[in-house]
Amino acid sequence: MNIRQQTETICASLKPEDTAIQPVDYVSPPKWHLAHTTWFFEQFVLVEQCADYNVFHPDFGYYFNSYYNTLGDRVVRADRGLMTRPALNEVLAYRAYVNKHLALFLDKGVSEATARIIEIGLQHEQQHQELLLYDIKYIFGHQPSFPRLEYQIQLLPETVQPHFVKIPEGVYNVGHKGEGFCWDNELGQHKVYLHDFEISNRLVTNSDYIEFINSGGYKDFNLWHADGWDFIQQNKLAAPMYWHKVNDKWMYYTLQGFKALDFSAPVSHVSFYEAFAFAQFKGMRLPTEFEWEVASSQFNYGNVWEWTNSAYLPYPKYAKPDGAIGEYNGKFMVNTMVLRGASVATPNNHSRPTYRNFFNPEMRWQFSGIRLAK
Amino acid sequence: MNIRQQTETICASLKPEDTAIQPVDYVSPPKWHLAHTTWFFEQFVLVEQCADYNVFHPDFGYYFNSYYNTLGDRVVRADRGLMTRPALNEVLAYRAYVNKHLALFLDKGVSEATARIIEIGLQHEQQHQELLLYDIKYIFGHQPSFPRLEYQIQLLPETVQPHFVKIPEGVYNVGHKGEGFCWDNELGQHKVYLHDFEISNRLVTNSDYIEFINSGGYKDFNLWHADGWDFIQQNKLAAPMYWHKVNDKWMYYTLQGFKALDFSAPVSHVSFYEAFAFAQFKGMRLPTEFEWEVASSQFNYGNVWEWTNSAYLPYPKYAKPDGAIGEYNGKFMVNTMVLRGASVATPNNHSRPTYRNFFNPEMRWQFSGIRLAK
Amino acid sequence: MNIRQQTETICASLKPEDTAIQPVDYVSPPKWHLAHTTWFFEQFVLVEQCADYNVFHPDFGYYFNSYYNTLGDRVVRADRGLMTRPALNEVLAYRAYVNKHLALFLDKGVSEATARIIEIGLQHEQQHQELLLYDIKYIFGHQPSFPRLEYQIQLLPETVQPHFVKIPEGVYNVGHKGEGFCWDNELGQHKVYLHDFEISNRLVTNSDYIEFINSGGYKDFNLWHADGWDFIQQNKLAAPMYWHKVNDKWMYYTLQGFKALDFSAPVSHVSFYEAFAFAQFKGMRLPTEFEWEVASSQFNYGNVWEWTNSAYLPYPKYAKPDGAIGEYNGKFMVNTMVLRGASVATPNNHSRPTYRNFFNPEMRWQFSGIRLAK
Amino acid sequence: MNIRQQTETICASLKPEDTAIQPVDYVSPPKWHLAHTTWFFEQFVLVEQCADYNVFHPDFGYYFNSYYNTLGDRVVRADRGLMTRPALNEVLAYRAYVNKHLALFLDKGVSEATARIIEIGLQHEQQHQELLLYDIKYIFGHQPSFPRLEYQIQLLPETVQPHFVKIPEGVYNVGHKGEGFCWDNELGQHKVYLHDFEISNRLVTNSDYIEFINSGGYKDFNLWHADGWDFIQQNKLAAPMYWHKVNDKWMYYTLQGFKALDFSAPVSHVSFYEAFAFAQFKGMRLPTEFEWEVASSQFNYGNVWEWTNSAYLPYPKYAKPDGAIGEYNGKFMVNTMVLRGASVATPNNHSRPTYRNFFNPEMRWQFSGIRLAK
Repeated sequence: MNIRQQTETICASLKPEDTAIQPVDYVSPPKWHLAHTTWFFEQFVLVEQCADYNVFHPDFGYYFNSYYNTLGDRVVRADRGLMTRPALNEVLAYRAYVNKHLALFLDKGVSEATARIIEIGLQHEQQHQELLLYDIKYIFGHQPSFPRLEYQIQLLPETVQPHFVKIPEGVYNVGHKGEGFCWDNELGQHKVYLHDFEISNRLVTNSDYIEFINSGGYKDFNLWHADGWDFIQQNKLAAPMYWHKVNDKWMYYTLQGFKALDFSAPVSHVSFYEAFAFAQFKGMRLPTEFEWEVASSQFNYGNVWEWTNSAYLPYPKYAKPDGAIGEYNGKFMVNTMVLRGASVATPNNHSRPTYRNFFNPEMRWQFSGIRLAK
Repeated sequence: MNIRQQTETICASLKPEDTAIQPVDYVSPPKWHLAHTTWFFEQFVLVEQCADYNVFHPDFGYYFNSYYNTLGDRVVRADRGLMTRPALNEVLAYRAYVNKHLALFLDKGVSEATARIIEIGLQHEQQHQELLLYDIKYIFGHQPSFPRLEYQIQLLPETVQPHFVKIPEGVYNVGHKGEGFCWDNELGQHKVYLHDFEISNRLVTNSDYIEFINSGGYKDFNLWHADGWDFIQQNKLAAPMYWHKVNDKWMYYTLQGFKALDFSAPVSHVSFYEAFAFAQFKGMRLPTEFEWEVASSQFNYGNVWEWTNSAYLPYPKYAKPDGAIGEYNGKFMVNTMVLRGASVATPNNHSRPTYRNFFNPEMRWQFSGIRLAK
Repeated sequence: MNIRQQTETICASLKPEDTAIQPVDYVSPPKWHLAHTTWFFEQFVLVEQCADYNVFHPDFGYYFNSYYNTLGDRVVRADRGLMTRPALNEVLAYRAYVNKHLALFLDKGVSEATARIIEIGLQHEQQHQELLLYDIKYIFGHQPSFPRLEYQIQLLPETVQPHFVKIPEGVYNVGHKGEGFCWDNELGQHKVYLHDFEISNRLVTNSDYIEFINSGGYKDFNLWHADGWDFIQQNKLAAPMYWHKVNDKWMYYTLQGFKALDFSAPVSHVSFYEAFAFAQFKGMRLPTEFEWEVASSQFNYGNVWEWTNSAYLPYPKYAKPDGAIGEYNGKFMVNTMVLRGASVATPNNHSRPTYRNFFNPEMRWQFSGIRLAK
Repeated sequence: MNIRQQTETICASLKPEDTAIQPVDYVSPPKWHLAHTTWFFEQFVLVEQCADYNVFHPDFGYYFNSYYNTLGDRVVRADRGLMTRPALNEVLAYRAYVNKHLALFLDKGVSEATARIIEIGLQHEQQHQELLLYDIKYIFGHQPSFPRLEYQIQLLPETVQPHFVKIPEGVYNVGHKGEGFCWDNELGQHKVYLHDFEISNRLVTNSDYIEFINSGGYKDFNLWHADGWDFIQQNKLAAPMYWHKVNDKWMYYTLQGFKALDFSAPVSHVSFYEAFAFAQFKGMRLPTEFEWEVASSQFNYGNVWEWTNSAYLPYPKYAKPDGAIGEYNGKFMVNTMVLRGASVATPNNHSRPTYRNFFNPEMRWQFSGIRLAK
């Protein structure tokens, strides 16, 4: 239950008001995360497998289901921010109640199938821990007082001496073998043919990115996808999310507050479009997800998720799991791009070289950066 | 300061989470109301007139200005719901600080001009007390748990024996003479010529309105303005706001919770379009604001604001006041309709027969009902 | 039938392509006007009153009904521009066919009721002749080649020596007595009480308006209604429709082509918001529609329609006519402002001092200008 | 020039009105296609390479450039439908003029580079011939009179005995070798590793698709991508484009007019989302573009383009060509899915097994159908 505790640790310095709002559709109220991850255990473990369990509140299943159409009606995603109730303290009581009953249930010993559900629940909670940090950053970073979060995460400088790693042409194995936990979308180790390529051992830094901005990167349509160009025009974008130019000096909001840009840190909070345009500007390209996976043992990663030039698509033997779990990954396999690696917001041991993260190409609130290939 | 205290009394049973959200543009977070009404006194009295006053927080002027462009930058209205900070308890501390300094300032005696500003501030706060009740009702009435508010207001049954009062043709005086407090938009008593008319001594009840619904009132375009017909089609409206048909029985959300419709209460939460269509259905019309004012001594009012068929326009001698106060009323004199009377949410002594309330014709979250004329 | 012929005269220099498009919802394809005005006679005279009449085409009633819900299904307004068929030459054949049958029908003599319908049909066609000129101007004025129309209309310079006419306080009669043709919305002569006012004998000119622009009129929110300010911000407006600044010189599109601004012509193609802001800038106001009507014998008008500060609302004894004709005026009596007078696009003898034109306050494609009052 | 002539042949039965409108952003006015394909030759051959050439009209370069930002200002795509001028007959004169000068220029003999540009121009014109048929179908299929086109294309019945072709696992070559014409996006023959798969020798027919509809395929969210589900909900889709249920019988608009559905024809005008959901319904999947290419010699194709489950992405050695031509393909390599094959609207010899067509997953106005794999 240390994993469950970590969710509360992240939120410890939030005020009740911070946990209630949904500033845009894709940012959920923090107290919704606290409740939804709890509902997962209540529903899939206690309700479904523990005969004498009494639900904490009969309506919470309806309130805190997320996108599992399989399980019936739910509050639509965009309306999560309308629910000021249950309040934060009730949600924390819900967590305590479910944790207690889960512990009692586990004490009796569980089947392998149940252990598997619990593992999924914990992995699921870890994913929400990461989303919580994105969402808290969005909430704090879009109000004039720029509050700071006491829970500490911080991007490290990219200090390694930069060079390009060469990988020879050939057939490679990619994907997860199925030993140890993995998501359905990684499963099915299979062969891919890769051609010669080179990949950088270092992420693009804020310093590199300022060069792109100063060279007019946001004004040269030749560098951009057509959709990317429309995206930056319509949203009047000329820098990563959270960057502000104050008195001719680049500042940014971080979870430590509003401060001067750290030039040696990896650039973060860029969309796929920006990552692509940056690579074009350098006369290079982004790696594919398979190039990344094959080369990943030859560089360090973990600061920010890394956009690849691979669309998020099913692996050759992909089979959607049955039931609600089956809605977790497969239905997003269109219009999204794969990110590989991990970020400082990713819980320890939650990532691995085969892990496939994915977002729409315009998303920027996650910790996402750039690694070049050629 | 009893008037100021009333704002806190209304909010006493709110949880911090309830006070932070802005579910739609026109509903402000309750803690914003608490702060904005305080900022009004801090800015227009203490900052402008009290030399040794230290502001509570240097950024609050920017945070809590509402639509006074005259006073410089402000958080745009639609973004009030992004500010989780300052939190509710800080806002309450702000109120206490300003109240204390205001009391000290008043003890020294104030000029007539300052007394006038303070009176405006209190009238302004009373208007926000009414808006607070609309906004709390919206916030509570649009979430699945339908919380109740401990502060009590309730629509009274319309029990009077209904008849139509006849008013003879002639020249009448309307508008405020300027003795005692009034808003700039009521000022300039002037003459209007009214033709013979009759006006009901009773408001339209929920029972009357159900007859309209059951007779297909929401499906007969002949009863509606073109814009009204578009409005109900696009928003799929077929009943007043807060009404829900559950198992073939009409229920509604009130500040006392979700309950069965009271048939004898006046219909409330209807738009101007619905009020107009209802009158068409009855073969009658809505009164003009001047008919209402002239006839108002002949019936009781105060349950709900009453839509008139008058557009909100300036009186003959209307002069926009100088400075920020001038932005209070005049700039809304287009695309809005006048409501007369008062509602159960209106603070005592805040209304009078010359009072001109106004809203866009599609608004429904206020306590607004229907009185017929012919 | 000279009136019918005039519609074709206006369109004589249009190419088939010009008659087919609907660049925005409120601009109808010219061939739609040609057909719709014909449908009016076919439906309300020939179909309803001439037993042996065979319709020109069984589907045209569906295609060319406009907003008469009473008559059943119709092509929704926004979809008029999808109908490339019937082509222009078919529409002209439809006109000829209906004209021929109408002439045959009239030769037999008609009842007073039928004569009344025909008169309405001709008045209706005259209104569409004016709309045609607005729509053609919009179509030609929003494409890079700025075509010219051979049919000639031109704004005259405002050359009268300007002064303000004084009108004394008192009870006045307004509205139409019902002798000769008028629309239902003018009917019911009735009394209004007017206070002392003064009204200009001259319209605001382009020269006057440039002073407003150059003085920063579009940048000073104090001059604008809140909705007007939002309107010009969102649409990035800083001049009347059809104005372009080329090499620091004001040019505009007219039906004679793209040319230098005529400084002495009345300003045209302004919204109500701009008219209001201009009046504020001059420290004056717009007249009400009743002030305008009472004073109208004391100045010339007819160059451009004149925005008043009156909302378009029913007169005291207003009764909506029965049937489809009843949808013509009454259902627009909300969210619109009254314009009085006439424009150079108005057919001869189509206007009169009691005529009530009306548009939404943001509309600018009509010939609309400004007369000041105080 | 037979290829150029074909464009005019397709348009021969269009009326001028049909050629002027742009009913939605992605459907261009037919006369725009006629002009734009001509402009391509005028600009890239005559203007750039023929010293004594006089342009037909100085503004046509601005009017008829499409999305080549490199060449400067252009009419934005969504505004093509505003240009009623130049009229159709002027556009046809433009075509004749450019054709004549092109012939004169070619008579003198051209360099290999120029011959390459001309070939691109002809291939480009062929692509527009196909788009013309989509656009004409859209224009005719979205108006109540459902006109027919005299130029004949027709989907053939899928009569082959259906079975699944098996392809063994291994390394395969895909992509174009560069001999003969191909687009930049096909270039770079390269190796891919394919796992065992089977692919149908027959397209999904209308009969098959009706089974999907009747089995509730449009109502079962489990079959759909999350984005696909949103797409069909928001657009209220329950059948392919152009299908209408009339008196319980399926009808559809074809270029031969409105008629009863042909059950044995391949289903067409489905989005990627629908193709995917159909495959899920059958317990199968769509092939990847490489599976399709490798297996393509083993079945017939050419009735409709076939959605693959491959996102449109660059090949390993992809290099964007320099200049305006470089904008042709590369900038669309995000948010689009690959279609393979050809359709009845595709000009003869325009397609080949390596050809990569691509559209956004929601597009349906093209002739697009479904081939199953497993």
